[in-house]
Amino acid sequence: MQAEDMILVSVDDHLVEPPHLFEGRLPAKYQDLAPKVVHTERGDDVWTFGEQVIPNIGLNAVAGRPKEEYGVEPTSFEEMRPGCFDVGERVKDMNAGGVLGSMCFPSFPSFSGRVFGATGDKDLGLAVLQAYNDWHIEEWCGSAPGRFIPMAITPLWDAELCAAEVRRVAAKGCHSITFTENPAMLGFDSFHSASWDPVWQACCENDVVVSIHLGSSGQLVVTAPDAPVDVMITLQPMNICQAAADLLWSRIPKQFPDIRFALSEGGTGWIPYFLDRVDRTYEMHHLWTGQDLGDRMPSDVFREHFLTCFIADPVGVQLRHLIGIDNISWECDYPHSDSSWPEAPEELEAVMAGVPEAEVNKITFENACRWYRFDPFVHRFRSESTVAALRAEAAGHDVSTRSYDTGRYERRKGVDIGKLAEQATA
Amino acid sequence: MQAEDMILVSVDDHLVEPPHLFEGRLPAKYQDLAPKVVHTERGDDVWTFGEQVIPNIGLNAVAGRPKEEYGVEPTSFEEMRPGCFDVGERVKDMNAGGVLGSMCFPSFPSFSGRVFGATGDKDLGLAVLQAYNDWHIEEWCGSAPGRFIPMAITPLWDAELCAAEVRRVAAKGCHSITFTENPAMLGFDSFHSASWDPVWQACCENDVVVSIHLGSSGQLVVTAPDAPVDVMITLQPMNICQAAADLLWSRIPKQFPDIRFALSEGGTGWIPYFLDRVDRTYEMHHLWTGQDLGDRMPSDVFREHFLTCFIADPVGVQLRHLIGIDNISWECDYPHSDSSWPEAPEELEAVMAGVPEAEVNKITFENACRWYRFDPFVHRFRSESTVAALRAEAAGHDVSTRSYDTGRYERRKGVDIGKLAEQATA
Repeated sequence: MQAEDMILVSVDDHLVEPPHLFEGRLPAKYQDLAPKVVHTERGDDVWTFGEQVIPNIGLNAVAGRPKEEYGVEPTSFEEMRPGCFDVGERVKDMNAGGVLGSMCFPSFPSFSGRVFGATGDKDLGLAVLQAYNDWHIEEWCGSAPGRFIPMAITPLWDAELCAAEVRRVAAKGCHSITFTENPAMLGFDSFHSASWDPVWQACCENDVVVSIHLGSSGQLVVTAPDAPVDVMITLQPMNICQAAADLLWSRIPKQFPDIRFALSEGGTGWIPYFLDRVDRTYEMHHLWTGQDLGDRMPSDVFREHFLTCFIADPVGVQLRHLIGIDNISWECDYPHSDSSWPEAPEELEAVMAGVPEAEVNKITFENACRWYRFDPFVHRFRSESTVAALRAEAAGHDVSTRSYDTGRYERRKGVDIGKLAEQATA
Repeated sequence: MQAEDMILVSVDDHLVEPPHLFEGRLPAKYQDLAPKVVHTERGDDVWTFGEQVIPNIGLNAVAGRPKEEYGVEPTSFEEMRPGCFDVGERVKDMNAGGVLGSMCFPSFPSFSGRVFGATGDKDLGLAVLQAYNDWHIEEWCGSAPGRFIPMAITPLWDAELCAAEVRRVAAKGCHSITFTENPAMLGFDSFHSASWDPVWQACCENDVVVSIHLGSSGQLVVTAPDAPVDVMITLQPMNICQAAADLLWSRIPKQFPDIRFALSEGGTGWIPYFLDRVDRTYEMHHLWTGQDLGDRMPSDVFREHFLTCFIADPVGVQLRHLIGIDNISWECDYPHSDSSWPEAPEELEAVMAGVPEAEVNKITFENACRWYRFDPFVHRFRSESTVAALRAEAAGHDVSTRSYDTGRYERRKGVDIGKLAEQATA
């Protein structure tokens, strides 16, 4: 399938929170206590919330940088592509990259929102968290209908509050929460405790997917203090297999037949081995471990309850039927360094060479739309939603590369978006 | 290829140390201080060494047990199949299982031998370690020439001593050491420190493979204290990807072109994804991380330096050419619970269905023989080395299943070894 004909819905992107996020969204008594951006004497921008100072306002938000500088984190809004934090600019970048839909994980609150819980005043924490979700749903997603899959943060410190927030955001059309890959690592009850049941119950009743992003346990995969950073970069996606095993063997899928998880940024090529391993573990060991899945195998349970995704994963594509063709989705990972924006469609075309169009469509958008109850075609015709059509809208939008050091602009090697846009409109 | 025609060399099995191991192998001043087996009042056998008491004499040595009892660890020699600790019986079990050659990891000293280092008297520790290696090479392997790949433990607490021990055992024909998957986790310098260089140098000069067994960092993969044991069983093999990434990105393969590692019990189906991931990591990030592999990709480095293995891994077999057909070997894992002994050949036949004979041979024995400098055919003809020929020798050997609870004997479901042996001799 040609890149230009694809329809792309990304289940894993990232937004950087703009400074005005909490303005007018909190009761008067909390407005002064809300997280705020402070411009430091050094010229950096940092988020502050109570005692907490979070300098990584856009950790790894390197879209539009030369690869030589991927390790240099932006420390101010000035240093980032506006598409990181300005939703209008984001939509233009999505158009240039041929991306129709996008689900955006939070930055400064952490993937699981633990920053909001790290305050002595839990009422304040909840108010701030709800203000965040309202902003995300109403402003970020609401400003471009049909372009964003809304996603909410939950108050992990209280399962009943979590469940209530799931219900509150679901009523606003939000069918995804960003959870942690391991609550036990964050000091909460593990996935094996019944104390989380109200959350799963609320998710099941409201068709809400529990999206679990790599790194959301608050722990990086570090083999040794002096290990090169390449080790961590290599291992991070696959490490989500720990959450997959933890959840798969837990009581949750047994007790909640409608629960659905997404393994965000976890890749797919390792899944067939993983499924073979869980099935062998079951066959060899369940007689003494006491696992009882009735007439199902663990791999069946996985396919019923887990969505996977990849940026560009040739092994996952080759083995797609061992994973489950209905269990694979695509992610862009904008604006992080693993992303191929704005040439992702061309990368995807190469990786999917030879895959039947019906299967490409499942992977690039249909599975994501079904899983997250997202219907972009309410807002635009399908013919207006292809890579080519979106790039035509982006004609003239600047996607050049800017270096910290030289300030020079240069077009990234690979596809000339301007040219593609010209062709599309010709 | 038919199971009966296969030649099987297993690169990962386990021996349980017999009580007499250290007898007559230490200087007089150390003989009384050597590790010894104590029969407790409860009827258990434990190894003791100084202050250390190691109750798990044969952790997970469950060969010949019904699967319902795999979780019940044997706590005495009485409760184990003699093939676990008696080399004569082991060879009979190998014959019954059709296994020509075997490399046996240690049990009570731990995979990395850290028990020997946990003594205030390092001279004693070294003497005991060398006695162990001498016993392993001379008695365990020496009693059945051509049936065992010798393997040595090294004194991790001193890299120069390690190097000297590598040279000492290599002079005895031992071309494999059992190392740790992460020395940093054991409190030593990490793989990224030059302090280990004498070890790698000695290995390169003496054609010695650094065999790295899962779990040899001394840490299990535990997601939460209340996680079901199935989570740990599932994750343990794949977790060796951490050691693979740590070593691959380290200075070792760059500095020591002849170094060779084996990822023992790590499985193979996840490797193609892993190789794609390391290559992508290199492409996307090396300009800022500073990795420089010259004209090679990380996947090339992997194939030059790493041997993998599987028990039965359909995904690994399917993707064997993405792994490297010269980088895959087979393991039996006797007497642990993941093993399919004595029906491993039949399992292998099913998993390898459709694979050309030349490739099956590489996987079942040729790669192991080349990698570990092991030539069984000096000792017996190839026609005497097949599964069928070995099983014929085992005719009459009892492989029945014994239960702790009932004491009843019953044949394991699946292949009837006696019948196979009869057929082979008919």
